[in-house]
Order: sequence, then C-alpha cells, then structure tokens
Amino acid sequence: MSITMYSASVPGLLKTLGNMLGWLDKAQAHADARKFDSKNYLQLRLAPDMLPFVKQVQIACDSAKGCARRLGGVEAPVHDDSEQSLDELRRRIRETVAFVESVPADRIVGSEERAIEIPARNREPRRFSGEDYLRHFALPTFYFHATMTYALLRHAGVEIGKADFLGV
Amino acid sequence: MSITMYSASVPGLLKTLGNMLGWLDKAQAHADARKFDSKNYLQLRLAPDMLPFVKQVQIACDSAKGCARRLGGVEAPVHDDSEQSLDELRRRIRETVAFVESVPADRIVGSEERAIEIPARNREPRRFSGEDYLRHFALPTFYFHATMTYALLRHAGVEIGKADFLGV
Repeated sequence: MSITMYSASVPGLLKTLGNMLGWLDKAQAHADARKFDSKNYLQLRLAPDMLPFVKQVQIACDSAKGCARRLGGVEAPVHDDSEQSLDELRRRIRETVAFVESVPADRIVGSEERAIEIPARNREPRRFSGEDYLRHFALPTFYFHATMTYALLRHAGVEIGKADFLGV
Repeated sequence: MSITMYSASVPGLLKTLGNMLGWLDKAQAHADARKFDSKNYLQLRLAPDMLPFVKQVQIACDSAKGCARRLGGVEAPVHDDSEQSLDELRRRIRETVAFVESVPADRIVGSEERAIEIPARNREPRRFSGEDYLRHFALPTFYFHATMTYALLRHAGVEIGKADFLGV
C-alpha cells in the first residue's frame, strides 16, 4: 500500500489521542493515591507564561480535529473549552477521536495540494498546501501539545514513561 | 505531487532540526545576558528521573538519523554522545542535518513495506512496516524529544515561543 495523506495523518493522530487517555488514567490514579483533587492538574504550567495543562490537552485535540477537518474539507463539531476536570478532558479526547474517525478516508486521500488557511491574530493568515500543512504545521503542533501534556504530568510525578507516550 | 515516504519524513525532520539550532542560539544569548555558563543547560531535567537536556538533543538527532537510515536502507555516521557544550550540540545537529540531506529521495520513496526492526533492551525487537515505523515510532519519538528540548529551555527562562518551535 502506498502512503496517502490519510495514512500519514489520521492513524498517528488517533494512536496518540488514545495514548493520552491512558496518561489521564494514570494521572487520576496518582491523585487518588496521594489524596489530592485531580482538578489540580488543570492549571499546572511549566513556566508562568506558558499555557496550563487544560489548554495543552484542548489544543492537542483541536490540532487533531483541525487536521482532519481541513484536509478532509468537512465541518467539525465546535468545542467551547469549558472542561473543568480530568473526566471532562477525557470526554473531549473521546469526542475528538470520534470526529477524526468519522471523516471518510477518501475525503483526505489526494489532499496534497488543497489550499489551507490558518487564521492568525493581527496578521495575514498562513497559507499552506495540504501536504505542507500536514508536515510543517499540523503534526508538529499536535505532537508539541501532546508532549507538553505528558511533560506536565511527568513533572507532577505521575508514573508515565516513554512507552506510555508511544503506546507500545 | 503525491505524498511519498520521503516527502512525509525528511522535510519535516529537517525543518525542526533547523529550528532547534535557533533555540540553541537563543539559549546561548540568554546565558550570555545572565552571565552563566551555557554548559549549565546540559544537565537540566524536568524531573530527576527524566533524561537531561543533552540527551534530549542527542535522541532527537538520533531519531531523525535513524528514520532516514532505516527507511533508506543506508549506513549512517556513528555518534558517541560526547557533546559537552551548546556548540558541540549545534555541531551534532548540523551533522544530523547533513546526513539526512545526503540520503537520496529515491532510497526512501517506496519504503512503506520495508521491514524495520528496533532493538529493545531485554526483550524482543519491535518490528514495523516502514510506514508504521514512520507514523507510530519515528515521528512521535522525534517530536517528543524536540519538544522536551524546547520545554527545558522554556522552563529555564529562554525567550522562545511557539513560532520558534514551528519555525514560522
């Protein structure tokens, strides 16, 4: 089978989104064992001028959703970023998985040259071909926020390791 | 142009490796401004049982090198992980870029079904098809260590942002 825009995007996104659910389970178990409220994770930051945990998860989800939506040229559900607990973040991830899974492969196959515009605040939107968007924006952004999610949990003492990141 | 195993791997790796050089430049500038020895970055860790900065950079480089080497079925230069300064890490990144650039595209194009084995300590090697290796191991591992490199610098106060991560 030759690689396609679908096989190069959706399976990897789904795999890591599924792995994230496992990290959140371990985060909950860590909170239960130490008897702290797992809501406390949501505002953790690696630096005071970085986005908190809750935003890292939300943006990882939106990166995956945006990738499938833009490459597929389909509508996606809107999320209002109102999550206030690990359970609500788990639901956000599951809804993202369901949406990404719902996009027909044949909508994404052949999207190499699709014109993609990413709105930017206070300046011209960024314009990409479908393939440049995938390799230089969608995948790096998705893995960036997934890794930040992992890093914050790891920094907080949750017992996760590289095998949890890769899901092996 | 249809996506290929080459276009889905090498350009993205090269872009982020180039971006990493920029983060290291800003890390050096931050050290100079605060008058501390930039060697101090090398042993920074987000948690005492995580790998230090120097290893994050080395493994990001090795992930890129390994991806081009394995998908291309070529030999790659060996690195002995002896870097002891930001300058030496910059050289490591530049040598990695030169190697990845040197692999002919037509060696990687068509590698979807190539049998890839990743040795593992104390257990059976992991076996992948070329495409599964790319999407479920090489790219996630590369972006994981690149993001950890970024996270450690950001946590240390270096003035880098998402635009430096993406190189836009």
